[in-house]
Amino acid sequence: MAAAEGGEPTRIMVAVNESTIKGYPHASISSRGAFEWTLKKVVRSNTSGFKLLFLHVQVPDEDGFDDMDSIFASPEDFRTMKHRDKIRGLHLLEYFVKQCHEIGVACEAWVKKGDPKEIICYEVKRVQPDFLVVGSRGLGPFQKVFVGTVSEFCVKHADCPVIAIKRSAAQTPQDPVDD
Amino acid sequence: MAAAEGGEPTRIMVAVNESTIKGYPHASISSRGAFEWTLKKVVRSNTSGFKLLFLHVQVPDEDGFDDMDSIFASPEDFRTMKHRDKIRGLHLLEYFVKQCHEIGVACEAWVKKGDPKEIICYEVKRVQPDFLVVGSRGLGPFQKVFVGTVSEFCVKHADCPVIAIKRSAAQTPQDPVDD
Repeated sequence: MAAAEGGEPTRIMVAVNESTIKGYPHASISSRGAFEWTLKKVVRSNTSGFKLLFLHVQVPDEDGFDDMDSIFASPEDFRTMKHRDKIRGLHLLEYFVKQCHEIGVACEAWVKKGDPKEIICYEVKRVQPDFLVVGSRGLGPFQKVFVGTVSEFCVKHADCPVIAIKRSAAQTPQDPVDD
Repeated sequence: MAAAEGGEPTRIMVAVNESTIKGYPHASISSRGAFEWTLKKVVRSNTSGFKLLFLHVQVPDEDGFDDMDSIFASPEDFRTMKHRDKIRGLHLLEYFVKQCHEIGVACEAWVKKGDPKEIICYEVKRVQPDFLVVGSRGLGPFQKVFVGTVSEFCVKHADCPVIAIKRSAAQTPQDPVDD
């Protein structure tokens, strides 16, 4: 057996989300960490050997809090809101796509809406990446009870190998639930 | 940020064990799968960018079954037995090291004795690889109760990112607990 000398690039799906501290279009600390880890430790100088697939899942604003001060007078207003949400997600993805282009790594990026853990697993089934990289806040058991963890769910349920990259202690904000 | 253009190679620890069907020096199906996956999907043609660290943990023969027909007449006999066990482990590692040499990937390999899941996590702490690759039989919940799974333990407890590579359905022996 020999190492692959070319052929199809290795397709790595990277699940990314927005910063809970700075909001859109900023990426969360753990998303950025997972992306940078992938470039540094896996892709390295072999930029033609890999293709990164960025998936951002937007959580529907169930309590409508973000739109509390908005006035909805027509169906058009709702369409505008949905459009604005989508644009926010695209600006987040822009951060990752731009860096890939600068380095010369092929990539694709898209936005979905729903429960992140379920949508990520669904997209893995559909897109069939070689593996999935997810950032993780590295929460303790007590914190996990309240916020759940997408990375643990994906490790268990995604239909491809999964590698969870924990945020370093130095990057952890005062409230570890923030990201 | 740019992809690494050289510098220190990415150090990947690969935990390997012997075949439960064919015994030493044959590698288990899931160990071979994890190794081949690493070469094909991560190392690819970038052979100078990675160093593989093969760890084989031997489980002490607690019930002495393997040595039931042996006669122990002196301390020397016990030393011979221990020496023979060690040699078996080295022959297993030879399989992986030989392939790395043929491809031109740097590697190191060593044998430890004890509970695989605990020793692997201990060695991760000591050696600090960039990530750990473990093969997994992909057992169902019923089978797991009886045999435990090293990969799940490592995913939870190892002090580095871990990627578990499941054996494909096509490679699963009649009894899925075999490997």
